[in-house]
Order: sequence, then C-alpha cells, then structure tokens
Amino acid sequence: MTPKKTKLLYEGKAKKIWETEDPDLLISEFKDSLTAFNGEKKSEEAGKGALNNKISAELFEYLNEKGIPTHFVKLLDDTHMLHKRAEVIKIEVIVRNIAAGSLSRNLGIPEGTELPFTLVEFDYKNDELGDPKLNDQHCLILNLVREPAELDYIRYMARKINRFLQEFYRELDLKLVDFKLEFGRDKNDNIILIDELSPDNFRLWDAQTNEKMDKDRFRQGLGGLAEAYAEVLNRIKNR
Amino acid sequence: MTPKKTKLLYEGKAKKIWETEDPDLLISEFKDSLTAFNGEKKSEEAGKGALNNKISAELFEYLNEKGIPTHFVKLLDDTHMLHKRAEVIKIEVIVRNIAAGSLSRNLGIPEGTELPFTLVEFDYKNDELGDPKLNDQHCLILNLVREPAELDYIRYMARKINRFLQEFYRELDLKLVDFKLEFGRDKNDNIILIDELSPDNFRLWDAQTNEKMDKDRFRQGLGGLAEAYAEVLNRIKNR
Repeated sequence: MTPKKTKLLYEGKAKKIWETEDPDLLISEFKDSLTAFNGEKKSEEAGKGALNNKISAELFEYLNEKGIPTHFVKLLDDTHMLHKRAEVIKIEVIVRNIAAGSLSRNLGIPEGTELPFTLVEFDYKNDELGDPKLNDQHCLILNLVREPAELDYIRYMARKINRFLQEFYRELDLKLVDFKLEFGRDKNDNIILIDELSPDNFRLWDAQTNEKMDKDRFRQGLGGLAEAYAEVLNRIKNR
Repeated sequence: MTPKKTKLLYEGKAKKIWETEDPDLLISEFKDSLTAFNGEKKSEEAGKGALNNKISAELFEYLNEKGIPTHFVKLLDDTHMLHKRAEVIKIEVIVRNIAAGSLSRNLGIPEGTELPFTLVEFDYKNDELGDPKLNDQHCLILNLVREPAELDYIRYMARKINRFLQEFYRELDLKLVDFKLEFGRDKNDNIILIDELSPDNFRLWDAQTNEKMDKDRFRQGLGGLAEAYAEVLNRIKNR
C-alpha cells in the first residue's frame, strides 16, 4: 500500500512536508523553487525537485547500507519521498573539506584551500536570525540539545557521514567540498539523519575541471543548474 | 628609574603601544578616542584614556593578587601603563553572564536575560573581517593557538577571571554583564592576560538601577560616558 498525503505539515523553501495516515511517517514533496542568501534570491528551475528527490534517495540508501541511521523509508515517485517523522534538532551541521562560501568570506580563507582537517560547524537553524554561527555553549543555552554529549555525537556522525560520502563521490569523479546536514529525534529518541541530501545543500566540484555541480551555479548566476544536477544523478546511476 | 618610550610599536583605536629601552617591557598610552561598531562610529571623550588606564591598573593589580598571570607591571602616570611584551593571541575572548549586545542581536536572547551558565565565546581578532565568531576548530585551522588544550586553558582562565571580577564588582554595587579579554604569550611562552580591563570592554550595570556604566553609553548615544567611567573608578577607590 502506498501511503497517501493527508495534511500539509510544513512548507519550506524547497519542500512541502505532508502527514500520512501513519502518524510515524511523513512524505516530503520536493519543489522546483530555488532560494539563496537567506531567501533574498529566488527562482524556479523545472525538474530540480525531482532531481533532488532522486539524488537524496540514492544517498540515503547508500548511507543506510553503511549503517548510518536516517529518516529515509523509500522513494514514492519523481517528487515524493516517504520518511520517518522526527523532531528536528534546530542546528544546521556544516561539514567542510575545502574552503568555500561563507567560510571563505567570513574568515578570509581563499576558496579552494584544502582544510588541514574536516571542519564541522553548527549554525542556528533560524531564518529570521539569518542562521548565525554557534559554539557548543550557545547550543546548550538555546536548549537545542539536551546535553554536551549530543553535540559530540552529532560531530562524530557528521565526520563519519563525510568519510562515506567522500568515498562515494570520489568514485563519481566529484569532489565533496562541503555540505549541510540536519538531524532529528525519532519516536524512540534516537538521533537520526533527516532532511535531504542534494546538490542544493552540497558543494560538488568536478574532480578534473573543478566545474561547480551544485547550487552555486544559481547563487553565482552561472546557469545550467538542472543540467549539472542531472549529470550528478547520471553519474550516480552509472556507478 | 622610570622606563621611557622609545619607538611606537602599534597604534590602535584606543591605545598607542610603545617600545622601551627594555626589550621585554612596553608602555601602553591610553587615548581619549572612542570607536564602536567596528570603527563606524567615532568620537573623542576628554579624560577617557586616563580613566581607562587607572581602572585597568586597579583591576590588573587585583587579579595579580588573586594569582592570575597578567602582563601588568605598573601604572606610570595618568595615561601610561608599563607592561610585559607578549605575543598577542588573535582571539577576542568574550565572557557573558547576562545577555546583551551582539548575543541578543544574533541569537534573539532578550537583553538582561540571566544566562544559565557563564558563556565564553571566541571572536577572531581581525578588524578587516569584522571579528567573526569562531568555534574551536576554526581557531586551530587559523593557527591562532598551537593545540586544543590551549583553548580549554583560555576558557578556564576566562571563567576564573570572571568569578574574581564578579566578586569585585558586586562589592561596588555593579553587575558584570559581559566583557572582552585578550591573552598573549610572554617570553617564556606562558599564556598571560594582556590588553586593558576598562569600561570600554566591560558591560557594567548599576546593581540597583541597571543604569549602564560602560561604552554602551557611547554606542547608544546616552551621553555621560566620562561621568560613568569616573563613577566606576570612584567606587573602586572607595572599596
């Protein structure tokens, strides 16, 4: 039986999230809309939602095989994914292998600099405040987690996921520059990987040419976004 | 023998730093100039330099008595202080007991909220980049310290200094809201407290009225800055 969307739970910038008949399961509907710079730049890109949905499903399946607990259940159709309900932990977990984007802007580290070790940053998932950077103590003061060990666990999981994804993308001749992860608590209070795993949230550069294969094509007005995402999906399918 | 200024080593927003005949000793000259919002707002306030010099000297003496290693040697005159030379660690260490300023703006915690524990933040001491927030990993990637344990030591010292200063100000009927510290390495590579300890870098509120007795009088255009600083020095002298 294919679960059916019942009530719209939440509409975000790139997804709608629907309740289903099963209280423990939700459906994410991937939209074609694109936003950047905290919503200041907006557009639509036909087919982007379907590409992100399919790429995310492939990556969740891969990580599930590697033993990473995630919210993913199954791909339903081009733009819909079935996943577990989870209470969102309001931290955007940024994992960086190579300097780019806000790291380069904020700390003056030139884009493309290989970092001496994988950097994990925590941003406050709060659009109104512009997703400010957090240290561990901020996370505790804002009650984003219950104890310091949860932050260590999230960092540990983020680095582990990074190692698996680096391996995955290396095979596709893509460099994993940086990415954003989100975590949540399932009904048994386990911390699991949630959200999506798509080039909207990942910086991917072609290993040979350093061509950008991610949302920076939109942020920087380079064009060819859907083509780049389709090429990523194509390389995944031909693994 | 009173050491003499020889060569100007550095001129900052609120101080000039001079070399002396002794290569291990420097002289800080406190200026009357005031800046805020990373230099965007500027002014002069007659007598401010002397007040900051004298208040800093009193606080350094107090902390030295409590066993905190600092760069302070002695007060020379109204606007000059003799201190050890130290290699500056380019981290601004922000210690917060009560939410105010950038913490309130960035994280939406209303000004005046008592924090559940003393928060220690690290900002990159880099005017050009606007002193961005750092986590521990950023400090290591930027080579601001030599090993993670130095960050733990700095946090430990900052909290210890906070406890001594809270006690000190409580006796003066002042609330220590937050403050900025800087640390450096002396010639033996010991990490010591440097810079100044003045109401330019401390938020102090009158314990009875919550009246601001610090640089927020300038930032917020409240006036009466020199009078407030003089009142702080007066309370210290009458301890």
